[in-house]
Amino acid sequence: MAIPSFEIAGPDVAAASAARARQARLTKPAGSLARLEEVAMRIAAWQGSAKPSARPAAAVLFAADHPVTVHGVSAYPPAVTRAMVNNFANGGAAASVLTSVQGLPLHVVDVGVSGDPGAVASSVFRDPVAGDPAGDVRIEDAMSPETYERALAAGVAAIKRLDPDVRIVMLGEMGIGNTTVAAAVAAALLGGEPGLYVGAGTGVAGDALENKRRVVTDAVARLKGERAVHEILRRVGGRDVVALVGAILAALERRALVLVDGFIVSVAALAAVRLVPAARDGLLFGHRSAEHAHGRVLEAMNAEPLLSLGLRLGEASGALTAYPLLELACALHNQMATFESAGVPDREG
Amino acid sequence: MAIPSFEIAGPDVAAASAARARQARLTKPAGSLARLEEVAMRIAAWQGSAKPSARPAAAVLFAADHPVTVHGVSAYPPAVTRAMVNNFANGGAAASVLTSVQGLPLHVVDVGVSGDPGAVASSVFRDPVAGDPAGDVRIEDAMSPETYERALAAGVAAIKRLDPDVRIVMLGEMGIGNTTVAAAVAAALLGGEPGLYVGAGTGVAGDALENKRRVVTDAVARLKGERAVHEILRRVGGRDVVALVGAILAALERRALVLVDGFIVSVAALAAVRLVPAARDGLLFGHRSAEHAHGRVLEAMNAEPLLSLGLRLGEASGALTAYPLLELACALHNQMATFESAGVPDREG
Repeated sequence: MAIPSFEIAGPDVAAASAARARQARLTKPAGSLARLEEVAMRIAAWQGSAKPSARPAAAVLFAADHPVTVHGVSAYPPAVTRAMVNNFANGGAAASVLTSVQGLPLHVVDVGVSGDPGAVASSVFRDPVAGDPAGDVRIEDAMSPETYERALAAGVAAIKRLDPDVRIVMLGEMGIGNTTVAAAVAAALLGGEPGLYVGAGTGVAGDALENKRRVVTDAVARLKGERAVHEILRRVGGRDVVALVGAILAALERRALVLVDGFIVSVAALAAVRLVPAARDGLLFGHRSAEHAHGRVLEAMNAEPLLSLGLRLGEASGALTAYPLLELACALHNQMATFESAGVPDREG
Repeated sequence: MAIPSFEIAGPDVAAASAARARQARLTKPAGSLARLEEVAMRIAAWQGSAKPSARPAAAVLFAADHPVTVHGVSAYPPAVTRAMVNNFANGGAAASVLTSVQGLPLHVVDVGVSGDPGAVASSVFRDPVAGDPAGDVRIEDAMSPETYERALAAGVAAIKRLDPDVRIVMLGEMGIGNTTVAAAVAAALLGGEPGLYVGAGTGVAGDALENKRRVVTDAVARLKGERAVHEILRRVGGRDVVALVGAILAALERRALVLVDGFIVSVAALAAVRLVPAARDGLLFGHRSAEHAHGRVLEAMNAEPLLSLGLRLGEASGALTAYPLLELACALHNQMATFESAGVPDREG
């Protein structure tokens, strides 16, 4: 096994230009649909078609546990990760509802969840990497080189299992402790005081928040200025985050557009863009998280999410909430009449 | 005929409380769905049910022309109003697409559009007020007292024609020149320099923008400090704006919630709230318009729209783009599992 390289081509300039020309002819003041126009044109450019499409789409969640929770960095016990995986499988989680009401498939991949999978495991894909041991990033590397490669491959494999026609991919995660490891990755990629990347996660404050800052600071210190993206991910990341990086790059390689969720998926997206800069053009950003460090990560990619509703749940919930805007943007682009076809007078002068 | 009074009861405190209690039990960190939780609880409180519902819903657009366009306040010729009414009827406008893809009915009411209705008129309701003469607000009152009452009644009648089960109403407008009259109404209701309420509308700049500021300033000056809301609307408003006020109050009176669109509908909502303060609790705000004065109008109602995508189209497009968020908020509220039912451990301590 080895770390794969990803070949990602840029946007299709001819399709982008055709989409822009069509927008100018639709029966509305030029530019008056603003970001909905931009979204349609971005999708058209990535899909290489003047008629962008938001369907079919799919959501994939990667779930893992994080030994770093022993330091008291979360408001919830680690057993919640397994319980929530079961909740996804049973249709009761936010991601379950957001996908089912929108007619979207939800795929859950266990890349290292502790505890007995139990009876619902049949609808959850348990990737082989799930069995590998995990390290506490405060004091040791999260993954061996072999486990890192397997975690990255788990993300790629999850995309390969999707219907090949899928045009929009929404990725998410579930893992108590994963805002902690994501903060360490973000701090290592972007520099600056590691504590600035630490937020409330599921809702920590006081001592737990202080613990979380200390853990992230210690984890980043262990890196001694390491700049290689794969090494940062391997040493202070988590298998959910690493699988997300693999999935983002694999989706973009096959020209599916990735609608990025909140803080953790954005950290994975940042790593993906650092590995393959052309990835940036295939990303749309769904939601600006309440997790305050999300702003720094977005800024590093010059990204402005479509929504800012204060969500801080994960599970691809921000992307899934923004998804209807992509559908509406494509419908407007493809179905509105033009000034000529509708016989509407265009602007004077 | 006379100006009707509207009886609007406050939110249902018991339903609000039951909805809040349910949110606290759903399988997510408390408050992590943020504004989606608030939306569900607001709808529950207004509907008087612990299970809020975003369906059935309907969109109603009021279309009118404005003699004030003789002063060159718009980027488009007045004939666009009639052409766009036909475009709605033929399914080619933004509002047509946004409603059809979401399975929502779109009703168009002509309350004073110039020009020959032509063949498509059958699917557009032509209210009797459409035949009344309209005044140029720069130099004369927009409506006689009789026409004003008829315009208000046109809004009420449009709501009465809807399916009585409709729970969410989205209102919009089409009328070249109507950001000009809406700016005059806003300035008269809120005070301050009238020019501050003038924006680009469909896209005016330079001389046309200067004309628009002058027209609004002159219109407001004619009011000589008039404070009565009905008089302000009658003298410097337009029939689309007045019908919107009637429709908002009639919808709220029958406990449908109004998802407010952009600048013009927000000005009508402000007038409605000034007339009946209890109306405020039945309003949700869909989108913060690129029309800069929208911010002042929203602030006066302490309103924060769900979206801010730079739209400046009208036609209820901002509300219709936000509508999926109401559906998702209700689905999450009603369909997510609770900690007990899913066997998920709740937070420690």
